[in-house]
Amino acid sequence: MPPTALEQQLNFLREIDRLKSVVRQSPLLDQSRKENSAEHSWHLALYALLLHDYAAAPVNSNRVIQMLLLHDIVEIDVGDFPLHAGFSSDVQAKQEAAAAVRLFGLLPPQQGSELLALWQEFERAESEDAKFAKALDRLQPLLINVFTGGGTWTENNVSLAQVVSRYGPVIKRGAPQLWAVCEQWVIRHFAGQTAGSQHKQ
Amino acid sequence: MPPTALEQQLNFLREIDRLKSVVRQSPLLDQSRKENSAEHSWHLALYALLLHDYAAAPVNSNRVIQMLLLHDIVEIDVGDFPLHAGFSSDVQAKQEAAAAVRLFGLLPPQQGSELLALWQEFERAESEDAKFAKALDRLQPLLINVFTGGGTWTENNVSLAQVVSRYGPVIKRGAPQLWAVCEQWVIRHFAGQTAGSQHKQ
Repeated sequence: MPPTALEQQLNFLREIDRLKSVVRQSPLLDQSRKENSAEHSWHLALYALLLHDYAAAPVNSNRVIQMLLLHDIVEIDVGDFPLHAGFSSDVQAKQEAAAAVRLFGLLPPQQGSELLALWQEFERAESEDAKFAKALDRLQPLLINVFTGGGTWTENNVSLAQVVSRYGPVIKRGAPQLWAVCEQWVIRHFAGQTAGSQHKQ
Repeated sequence: MPPTALEQQLNFLREIDRLKSVVRQSPLLDQSRKENSAEHSWHLALYALLLHDYAAAPVNSNRVIQMLLLHDIVEIDVGDFPLHAGFSSDVQAKQEAAAAVRLFGLLPPQQGSELLALWQEFERAESEDAKFAKALDRLQPLLINVFTGGGTWTENNVSLAQVVSRYGPVIKRGAPQLWAVCEQWVIRHFAGQTAGSQHKQ
């Protein structure tokens, strides 16, 4: 007997429980441990709910929230690719695309196709919703690094120029007002480091 | 100088990072550790996105998602009250209401009021959106218990009758079709336990 739609949906919901075990590079703000991709996705959805007025162009905040809830589930198959690790983005993109097909393929066909399309829209980063979602996905770890006195920047010996080039374009494109604030934080952070007094919360 | 709206919003987003450290009674499905309330909220938002067609009456799934993303943030101040622990629900309700006022009070006034109202709507559990959200909040730990061979039921020596009375009314009221499935799982689970063969995934 083929599975019912509900059985397929519950199977998907069980499968994505595994995202809670995918550990990211960024710590929690209290630095007690590293963040996982499920709680990161929760946090980002709330960034979208609160900050959508700062998008570069009008966005549908509910679509952005849905994108951000789903954007990392491919990491269940392929893991997290850290921003500062220098992986090939082609290899990463292919592996993630295959993971998306497998995971959304667990769902009833119509629902699976719609959510796969939403995930692909996020990855393409061309629509206003996707550009804003991408900006938030870059903003949240930047905020963590600033407010934990360096975080993954310190661990990876990343310079001010590298931070500006790796975070700036994506955040600026999707949320220019937010980048203006981030840029000031980043400059202050690296100025404090140079002076030997790490920026602490 | 009073904080800008953006500073208030970012302050709120920093504060709620603490929900990632509130540990629930339920384990992850792989039983590697207990679940935290931030990743639980992420999971529930996806339950709402996928399962809204099973609501007892038509719901606005985007409002349900927003409710579920926010529903547990009061635990930052008051912790998680386990279903099977027998706390006074009056004490719990008062503490949580005060926590909601404090936390949403960090936001710009209009945004804070709107989200506080959404949280209060969830707590009252009277609107269709809130009844469905409450049903999912009860369904997700039930599913975990069934698929981990007992989970918090085994730990707390909870009987079939107690499970039916503690989960049934809330799930049935918000999502009767989902309760019909849950009830079968629960009966099978306890039948298996009686026979000495725990139901495993």
